Amino acid sequence: MSQPINRFKADLRDIQFTLFEQLKVGDILSKGPFADWGVDEVKMVLDEVYRFSTTVTGPLNQVGDLEKCRLENGQVTTPTGFKEAWNQLYEEGWKGVSVSEEHGGQGAPTIVSIAAEELLSGSNTAFSMYPGLTQGAAEAIDQNGTEAQRALYARNLFQGKWGGTMCLTEPHAGSDVGAALSTAEKNGNGTYNIKGTKVFISSGDHDLTDNIIHLVLARVKGAVAGTKGLSLFIVPKYRVNEDGTPGESNDVTTGSIEHKLGINGSSTAVLNFGENDTCVGELVGGVEHQGMRQMFTMMNFSRIGVGVQSLGIASTAYLNTLEYARDRKQGPNVKNWKTPEAPRVPIIQHPNVRQMLMEMKAKVEGLRILIYKLAYHEDQARLLAGKDDEKADYHKGQVDLMTPLVKAYGSDEAFNICEIGIQVHGGAGFVQDYPLEQYLRDSKVFSIYEGTNSIQAMDLVGRKLGLKGGQYTQQFMGDVAQFVQEHVEHPELGEAVKRLSKAQEAIGATAMRFLTWFQSGEMEQVPLSGRSFLVMMSETVIGWLLLQAAAIAIESAKALPADHPDQHFYAGKKYAALWFANNCLPEVVARAETIALADRSPMDIPEEAFATI
Amino acid sequence: MSQPINRFKADLRDIQFTLFEQLKVGDILSKGPFADWGVDEVKMVLDEVYRFSTTVTGPLNQVGDLEKCRLENGQVTTPTGFKEAWNQLYEEGWKGVSVSEEHGGQGAPTIVSIAAEELLSGSNTAFSMYPGLTQGAAEAIDQNGTEAQRALYARNLFQGKWGGTMCLTEPHAGSDVGAALSTAEKNGNGTYNIKGTKVFISSGDHDLTDNIIHLVLARVKGAVAGTKGLSLFIVPKYRVNEDGTPGESNDVTTGSIEHKLGINGSSTAVLNFGENDTCVGELVGGVEHQGMRQMFTMMNFSRIGVGVQSLGIASTAYLNTLEYARDRKQGPNVKNWKTPEAPRVPIIQHPNVRQMLMEMKAKVEGLRILIYKLAYHEDQARLLAGKDDEKADYHKGQVDLMTPLVKAYGSDEAFNICEIGIQVHGGAGFVQDYPLEQYLRDSKVFSIYEGTNSIQAMDLVGRKLGLKGGQYTQQFMGDVAQFVQEHVEHPELGEAVKRLSKAQEAIGATAMRFLTWFQSGEMEQVPLSGRSFLVMMSETVIGWLLLQAAAIAIESAKALPADHPDQHFYAGKKYAALWFANNCLPEVVARAETIALADRSPMDIPEEAFATI
Repeated sequence: MSQPINRFKADLRDIQFTLFEQLKVGDILSKGPFADWGVDEVKMVLDEVYRFSTTVTGPLNQVGDLEKCRLENGQVTTPTGFKEAWNQLYEEGWKGVSVSEEHGGQGAPTIVSIAAEELLSGSNTAFSMYPGLTQGAAEAIDQNGTEAQRALYARNLFQGKWGGTMCLTEPHAGSDVGAALSTAEKNGNGTYNIKGTKVFISSGDHDLTDNIIHLVLARVKGAVAGTKGLSLFIVPKYRVNEDGTPGESNDVTTGSIEHKLGINGSSTAVLNFGENDTCVGELVGGVEHQGMRQMFTMMNFSRIGVGVQSLGIASTAYLNTLEYARDRKQGPNVKNWKTPEAPRVPIIQHPNVRQMLMEMKAKVEGLRILIYKLAYHEDQARLLAGKDDEKADYHKGQVDLMTPLVKAYGSDEAFNICEIGIQVHGGAGFVQDYPLEQYLRDSKVFSIYEGTNSIQAMDLVGRKLGLKGGQYTQQFMGDVAQFVQEHVEHPELGEAVKRLSKAQEAIGATAMRFLTWFQSGEMEQVPLSGRSFLVMMSETVIGWLLLQAAAIAIESAKALPADHPDQHFYAGKKYAALWFANNCLPEVVARAETIALADRSPMDIPEEAFATI
Repeated sequence: MSQPINRFKADLRDIQFTLFEQLKVGDILSKGPFADWGVDEVKMVLDEVYRFSTTVTGPLNQVGDLEKCRLENGQVTTPTGFKEAWNQLYEEGWKGVSVSEEHGGQGAPTIVSIAAEELLSGSNTAFSMYPGLTQGAAEAIDQNGTEAQRALYARNLFQGKWGGTMCLTEPHAGSDVGAALSTAEKNGNGTYNIKGTKVFISSGDHDLTDNIIHLVLARVKGAVAGTKGLSLFIVPKYRVNEDGTPGESNDVTTGSIEHKLGINGSSTAVLNFGENDTCVGELVGGVEHQGMRQMFTMMNFSRIGVGVQSLGIASTAYLNTLEYARDRKQGPNVKNWKTPEAPRVPIIQHPNVRQMLMEMKAKVEGLRILIYKLAYHEDQARLLAGKDDEKADYHKGQVDLMTPLVKAYGSDEAFNICEIGIQVHGGAGFVQDYPLEQYLRDSKVFSIYEGTNSIQAMDLVGRKLGLKGGQYTQQFMGDVAQFVQEHVEHPELGEAVKRLSKAQEAIGATAMRFLTWFQSGEMEQVPLSGRSFLVMMSETVIGWLLLQAAAIAIESAKALPADHPDQHFYAGKKYAALWFANNCLPEVVARAETIALADRSPMDIPEEAFATI
């Protein structure tokens, strides 16, 4: 076993700024369902979760990476310390921050649990997979299950007594979920006989809980082909006794676990259901053929969760890199580059290093605002439902629109940020003595699971842009336009705001182009350019939100004495926004021009011409 | 030990096209020093090296990754099979293809050995580090050593009897080589007493050879500070007896080896010289204070070598991904996306997958032409030296100019190509059952060692662009301009050639901007934008060379019957060029515009403002 050392870092000041100064979360606290929550309570929770993350899960991050999971005699063993961390997590209640009080949670706004999750997940991605999947399964049952299912399964899952999984993927059905071959046959007593093989199942088996509740997509005999014929089943590892305790085995076996690039402390299993024809499943909500819809309540939650994972790892990657750049001395300041005797300086003084650090900083903080804002839209939608349904619909629409950006741009940039961090570290970035190489490996899966980033792009351009006749897109465009109008004459940010305006125009023109392609049947152009458009839109949103943060920071700085410690922090917000506006927003415009070329070379090339072997 | 399976692939047809149809290597074969080499001999060598790479080194690639190197009792043990592979490599002579006959080599043009190296290195990056470093040390001694040193050390290194290393880096002297603290003191008998610690030494210790010859940069007592005071020493692991056999230990010990992200089969050592004050070194060439210059003969060779490593891994990553995309069925064709019963198709039919494959293909083939052309310039310089010194100087200048592009753009893109390959694989890309995750890990070091990519950028903009008053840059610009002029009306490529022309203009304008910054003392802007300019220039060169290949391919295709098997290959060359011109060349222009903004946010931000922790 390797020595447990915490290397997780977080910038709580920036988290607080985003929550309270930018998004003004205080406005919804102490009201309605959040009556028990004030600003102090939120800060206290974040302080406590930070303590937990740096003392419990953080120190286990490399331990889990090096020890990995083991499969012996059909049972997966997690790395040393994971079980204790799991128990402590649920005892202290940090996974239940926004879980309803009905299920034993603390009922906080979603945005608070998202901030907490940034810390938990960033400190140990692999460990956080287990409670993450468990909570996803709990949500799916809570929202779609019968009262009895909610009381038994959702409650035990929310409280961490049992673990949960989501079982979609099969050997020949990955992105193509509808091709699933798993079957369910009525037993005649209300239960179903489940048969099939599921692969790449995260948390598929482990030793953290007494029971594991698998949510399995399967086709009831006779149902139609494709996703519409799928139903969702609750399939426990151990059947549940009358008294609610785990009973006999339910014919679910772990065939193998994957040897992976990263998140080694998380088990990824091949699960065989019903090899002995004795696997019993219970239909979620008691209705057939609703599996995809039900799974999607979990899937959306999970996609946002991938964004949070991305943010957590990107942030600690940045802060570890910053620490290295401040400590590591190498070479003279560029102004003395011709003087061999000039004093060696910390590499943070070198312009090329600062360029890399600025990219990391601006993107980390931009992702944070994007993700927190999405969560805040979710809270607002919940608060306004039934009171002002039009406004609630606006907020829900923004959640839908932003989810693929959070998942895909977040995951691609998390990996990119880790790569930049390695580059700043030089040789130190390539070795296990520093955490960057693990962050890089762990983060690669984010662009793949919960719907690959190509699927996210198709979700954005093929579905989300056009929801309600494009209304949510127009509302988003209107929000940006309003900000531009209000800030285009800003003395420090005006030029940058003009770049934002150009990026926004580029988005509008490109969205119209996609519409034309759809209408004219030039379907192939859409997936050819979808991922580039997703980047365009993500960077426009982030450019907007970073500039909004900068405008607030500039005002706040003015109100403080020049030597106030927060002056540096506020200056950082301003320069992050300027960096992003000057370096990323012009690229949005350039991408639009490239998409407009409608290059067809990938379709025109004969399949045999890709290579001669 | 894991099961040895070869997963290395290469596209020999493309290699042959680049050598014979595009660069017309046949023109220099059978002449002067290459009198023994004809087209058939070159093809035969490549066929044989391909056989070796797929049957000897290829099968050991994952073995080495999983077994890793071990340090026990001060001695490094390499993975199973490495020693046998080493012996076979030198017995069959594939490392000596272009080594002079004086040293027992085959005297082929450099370009032939570069093509062979693409195969050797691509099949097993970690293994290839050992002969790579050995050959680098041999070259350095061959070019700078005394006759006796050449006869003893260079010869044994070229023949693989001994291994070699290059020892520059120290704990506090990485990129800042001139800060090295290792010392050398005259022993009074012509030898020196060496003391110091060197870190990150590739092949620093191993069990492949009887002796290891370390080339060590150290400062003779009293020498000036910085790089100018460094001298280069031959320091054998075992002192060499009168009869040339290895004798007693030379007080060089292996302190530890690194645990790394990748190239696990390659040992990376901390070496302690002279801990007992009995480490004897011999001055290379018998002259002091020439260490940096002498090391640079090895360093340039090594930087091009990193480009070749990048190409080798990128190419096999592409071809493995292509195979996966042809085999893996998932989802219906986009034209049937609304029909659940539509037949499942290989994912290569999906536009988003083809988009990713085209990027991989165009960049791999572009890198190949760039690197081979550089090698060809080197051969031409050698052939013309003393006959037409002006032309020889042109060719040597192009080698100098292109070396940082080959090293930095090659390494960044190799990693990028591996990442795309993982994305095409989906979940399969994240697990050890497929080679992509190892390729990704192995390739990350390329952007770091042999001078980080930031250093390459500074080498390009701070040194190479302005060599001989900018003459080599102007010659390169002239070569591109001539191609543009000749092909701008090309019926199939004309539009793409116009984009090349715009990219070239963007380079010219940006180079002038750098000049202005240098002249006005705005030094900081140079490293802020250096890496972006390096990408601009690399993509312009590659765009040009891909279009040149396409023009040749289109002509060749016309001369063949429509059903000739080469038609597909030639079509592939055309579409790769069109893809690159439509997707990468516009970005060159966009980068120039961003550089022109002269964003100073990374310098303006106060150091304390990067984060509050």
